[in-house]
Amino acid sequence: MKQIPVLLCVATMAVGVGGAMTVSAAGAEQEKSSLIFGGTLPPGYRDWKLISVAHEEGSLNDLRAVLGNDVAIKAFRDGKLPFPDGAIIARLAWRYVPSEENNKAFGRPQSFVAGPPTNVQFMVKDSRKYASTGGWGFTQFTDGKPDGVVAQGCFSCHVPVKARDFIFTRYSP
Amino acid sequence: MKQIPVLLCVATMAVGVGGAMTVSAAGAEQEKSSLIFGGTLPPGYRDWKLISVAHEEGSLNDLRAVLGNDVAIKAFRDGKLPFPDGAIIARLAWRYVPSEENNKAFGRPQSFVAGPPTNVQFMVKDSRKYASTGGWGFTQFTDGKPDGVVAQGCFSCHVPVKARDFIFTRYSP
Repeated sequence: MKQIPVLLCVATMAVGVGGAMTVSAAGAEQEKSSLIFGGTLPPGYRDWKLISVAHEEGSLNDLRAVLGNDVAIKAFRDGKLPFPDGAIIARLAWRYVPSEENNKAFGRPQSFVAGPPTNVQFMVKDSRKYASTGGWGFTQFTDGKPDGVVAQGCFSCHVPVKARDFIFTRYSP
Repeated sequence: MKQIPVLLCVATMAVGVGGAMTVSAAGAEQEKSSLIFGGTLPPGYRDWKLISVAHEEGSLNDLRAVLGNDVAIKAFRDGKLPFPDGAIIARLAWRYVPSEENNKAFGRPQSFVAGPPTNVQFMVKDSRKYASTGGWGFTQFTDGKPDGVVAQGCFSCHVPVKARDFIFTRYSP
């Protein structure tokens, strides 16, 4: 899932004329390569297959869908634990908003739909690279950019489901 | 999307010994072929891409995911109306259940997840075949079997969104 940092290349071409700028770009490149997915959204994740859906109340106030790449989906369907290296799980979320249109059709207020997107989170399995966090790398993107969520913070919440390889979501048939 | 009625073939092989039974099976075959998808779930629908998610309160009390085959997804993403023939939209739904496990992790009661499946509904676009219902065929499956939902009943609820080719759900990025 390693990606060419496309945005960085564009920036280098546009402004990397002076020597100082070139050094700065090289530093940024190194920084980006240390980020999960090189700091960009993994290509095609929006096409991944559905694992399940959920709703969070409170400050999150969202509807969410959990998708998996082919490796993750196979593991879920086979019921095999732990997840193999290469498995990636994506959690998409959107604002939880009432639908007046749907309510009219149903004849009562009961319908809530996905509003604007909030953020997208990923868990990527690499048992060696992320050995200190159960073999999973955690990352979060807001508006397409990694937003500084700390992996250790994500991981600590997932420890109670260590027996399911740190995954809360169950596959919905 | 025409399907071989697999279940019927098996039944015929198992019990179709006497003449009367053969006639009965032929009648059933004719009946099945008049059903949308031949009365069986369209193959691979669970792998289709996600359009959006929703929650219905009240007697439905579910969390739902709306998936589309490639024709439907392309139309949604292109924002093209009407949907072309061959588009199929699937609405999956599961009981809306609180998650004690998630609530513990979040530190407050706020989390609702997908429980057991309820039913699966499909809209399939064939502007000639289903001309009397906006070009859409409607069908519903419970426990993998078509459950006698009347197309006209489904269609009448969708009339208010005629301007969006009778589709309530909007694509969630």
